[in-house]
Amino acid sequence: MAVNLTIPPESSIFPVAGVEIGIAEAGIRKANRKDLTVFKLAPGTAVAGVFTLNRFRAAPVQVCESHLASGEPISALVINTGNANAGTGADGLKATRQTCDALAALLNIKAQQILPFSTGVILESLPVDRLTQALPAALGDLAAGNWFAAAHSIMTTDTQPKIVSQRIELDGKTVTITGISKGAGMIRPNMATMLGYLATDAGIAPALLNDMTRAMADRSFNRITVDGDTSTNDSFIVMATGQSGVQINSSSDAGYQKLYDALAAAATELAQKIVRDAEGATKFMTIQVEQAGNADEALKVAYAVAQSPLVKTAFYASDPNLGRILAAIGYAGVDDLDVESVNLWLGDVLVASNGQRHPGYQEEDGQRVMKEPEIRVRIALGRGDATETVYTCDFSHEYVSINADYRS
Amino acid sequence: MAVNLTIPPESSIFPVAGVEIGIAEAGIRKANRKDLTVFKLAPGTAVAGVFTLNRFRAAPVQVCESHLASGEPISALVINTGNANAGTGADGLKATRQTCDALAALLNIKAQQILPFSTGVILESLPVDRLTQALPAALGDLAAGNWFAAAHSIMTTDTQPKIVSQRIELDGKTVTITGISKGAGMIRPNMATMLGYLATDAGIAPALLNDMTRAMADRSFNRITVDGDTSTNDSFIVMATGQSGVQINSSSDAGYQKLYDALAAAATELAQKIVRDAEGATKFMTIQVEQAGNADEALKVAYAVAQSPLVKTAFYASDPNLGRILAAIGYAGVDDLDVESVNLWLGDVLVASNGQRHPGYQEEDGQRVMKEPEIRVRIALGRGDATETVYTCDFSHEYVSINADYRS
Repeated sequence: MAVNLTIPPESSIFPVAGVEIGIAEAGIRKANRKDLTVFKLAPGTAVAGVFTLNRFRAAPVQVCESHLASGEPISALVINTGNANAGTGADGLKATRQTCDALAALLNIKAQQILPFSTGVILESLPVDRLTQALPAALGDLAAGNWFAAAHSIMTTDTQPKIVSQRIELDGKTVTITGISKGAGMIRPNMATMLGYLATDAGIAPALLNDMTRAMADRSFNRITVDGDTSTNDSFIVMATGQSGVQINSSSDAGYQKLYDALAAAATELAQKIVRDAEGATKFMTIQVEQAGNADEALKVAYAVAQSPLVKTAFYASDPNLGRILAAIGYAGVDDLDVESVNLWLGDVLVASNGQRHPGYQEEDGQRVMKEPEIRVRIALGRGDATETVYTCDFSHEYVSINADYRS
Repeated sequence: MAVNLTIPPESSIFPVAGVEIGIAEAGIRKANRKDLTVFKLAPGTAVAGVFTLNRFRAAPVQVCESHLASGEPISALVINTGNANAGTGADGLKATRQTCDALAALLNIKAQQILPFSTGVILESLPVDRLTQALPAALGDLAAGNWFAAAHSIMTTDTQPKIVSQRIELDGKTVTITGISKGAGMIRPNMATMLGYLATDAGIAPALLNDMTRAMADRSFNRITVDGDTSTNDSFIVMATGQSGVQINSSSDAGYQKLYDALAAAATELAQKIVRDAEGATKFMTIQVEQAGNADEALKVAYAVAQSPLVKTAFYASDPNLGRILAAIGYAGVDDLDVESVNLWLGDVLVASNGQRHPGYQEEDGQRVMKEPEIRVRIALGRGDATETVYTCDFSHEYVSINADYRS
C-alpha cells in the first residue's frame, strides 16, 4: 500500500568509499530472516547521531550515546531487527554491551568504537547469544555494494526498502551520498521508530557534522508523524568517511552549503519514505503552517492536524470534511488564536477564509484534491512569518489490522 | 458495539419538577428525524455551564456564554442535531440569534434567557428557517416525562441513548437528579463533541452551582478521550430548579456534600457512557496514574497512554503488548522521569516493575486481563502523591469505518 514509494534499481545505488556492509541471519525473532547488519567504517570517518527523546530509551540508544561521548573514533555499527531491547533494564544494557564486546573482539577494536542499534518488539529480552554467534557470518559478508541488501535487512513492518543515493560535484571531485532508513509505525518527531543511516565520502569535521546532523534531523526525521507515538529506539546516524578527498571543516567553506543541501535532501527523502510506507497508508500528506507567530506554534498546529484521527480518516475516505481540520487548528493549543485570521487551502483550493467556509468554495473542488495520493494542506494563521512543514499519512483499516496483529 | 452501556427502562427515569421537554422534527439534515429539542425551565431555576476550549468555538457556544454572562435568568434551552453551526462566522452567529429570537417570541421571554446548542457537521450553514418553523411543534410537545425521548433526539453518531436518573433523600425531602448526554467521536477533554444536561429539583445558589459544575466537569467530561479531538461545540449544563423545596446556598450547608456527590456521580456516569458508546469501541479502559509529582504530569501520562493509537489497537486485539504502554509513558513529556521508578499494572497483574518487565510476569496473565471488556491500567510513577484518572476505549476497524463514512 506504500504511497508513491519508488525503489530505485539496485544499479543506481552508489557505494560510499570507506563503508562496507555485511548481513547475516541471527534468528533473533524468526528463522531464515536476514536480521543482523554490520557497518564497517574506514579509519578517519566522522560519525554523528541524533536519538529518541523517549524517557524509556532503549539499551542500545543509551550505549550509542555513551560511545559517541567517549571520544573514541567510531569504526562499526551493528543493527539487529526483531527485538528492540527496550524496557529491559540492566539485563538489556548487559546484552548490548556483550554485543559490542563480541564485535570489538572480532574487529580488534575497542567496544567504545561500536554503535549498536535494535528495532522490534519492546519489553522482551534480546537473545544476545544468537546475535553474537552470527557476527562472524556478517563480517564474512562485508562488501561496499551491500547497501540495497542492508535496506532490506533493517526492515520490520516496512513493506518496502528505503534507500537514496546520489552523486554531486564538489571542488571538481565527485562526492557520493547514500542512505537507508526503516520504520512504518510508532512514528512521531523526536523521533520515529525509525533507523536512518546516511553516509558520504566527503570528509566533515566532527563538531560540524554534529551540528549538521541535528539541523538535518529537525527538517526530516523530526517532522514526520504516523500515529503520534515516539519510539524508544529511534536513531539517525550520519557518517562522513573523507575518502573522496573533499574535506569540509567549517560552514563558511566553499562547498559546505551544496553538501549540506544534498545531505539534507537525502535525509528528508529517507524520512518521507517512512511516511509513504507507513502502516496502512494510502495518502501522503504535507501539512504546511504559515504566518505563525513562531516555529513552536506553527508546529503545534501542524501536528494537531497531522495527528487527528478524525482528519486522517477523512483523508482515507477522500472526504473533504474540512471542519475536522478547522477543529484541530482550534484545539492545537494556540491560546490567543484569532480564528477570523485563519485561511486554509487544500492543494490549490481555498476552502476556508477568515475562519469560515470560503464563499467561492465548491465541494467538488475539495473532493478532486482529496482523491489524489499526495495532498498538500496549507494553513495560514495571520499572526507572523514563521513557517513549518510536517509530513503524515492517512489512517486506514489496514493500520488497525497491522497494529492489532503485529505480535500475533 | 457499545461496551457495557445499559439503557435503563423508561419507567426508571424520574422527571425533574420544573423541567419540561419538547421534541420535534425540523429536517435540519435528514427528514423524519427528531432533531430539535427544547427544555423549558420553571422560574427560579439556576443554570450553569462549561464549554469547549476549542478556539473555533461554534456560534451557539459563543451565544451561550454571552447569555449566561448577561445575568438574565435562563428559562429555556434549544438543541438541534445534524448541524454544528461551527466555522460559520457572522452568518452562523446570526442564525443562532434568529433561533433564540424566535423561541423568545413564542415563550414571551428575552432572547438572553435562552441557551442554544448545535451538534453535527462543521462548516455548513444552519438551515435556521426549518429550525424556527419547527419550534411551535416542539413547544406543543412540552412534557415533564420526555427525558427518554430527549436522550434519543440529541443523538448523532451515538448508537444508544445516554441517560441517568436517581433520587436521594436530603433534609427529609426527596431530591431528583436526571441527566442525558450525547457524543461518540471527537472526544477529548475540554471538552468532547458532547452535550451533557443534568437537572435537579434541588435549589442551588447560582455562584455555588457554577463552582460545582466546573468541579464536576473536571472529574467527568474533562476526563474522557476517544480520539484526542476536542470539538467546537462541547457543552455541559447543570440546572437546579429548586422545586423539591431543598435549597443549598453554601458548600458548608448540611446537604451540600451528599448532593454534590450524587450530581458528580451522575456526571461521571454520563461521561463514561460516551466512552462506552465511542465510535467502534469494544473495550472500556480506565487509565489511573498514581504517585505523580503533580496533577498536570499525572494527566500528561494518562492521556499519552489513553490516546496512543498503538496502545488502543493493542487493546482492540486483546494483545498485552505492554511495551507500547511503556513507550507512551516515556514520551508523555515528563522530562525528568526516572523510568526505573515506574510500575505498571494491567488489572491486578503487575507487568512492569522498576521500568522493566516484572520478573514474575506471565504473558497469559496479561492476556486474561486484556480479554475483559473493562480494563484498568494502573501506572505508578514513584515521584509524589498526585493521582488522576481518565477513561478511554480501544481503536477498532469500526472506528475507521464510521469516521471514513460519516458524511457520505
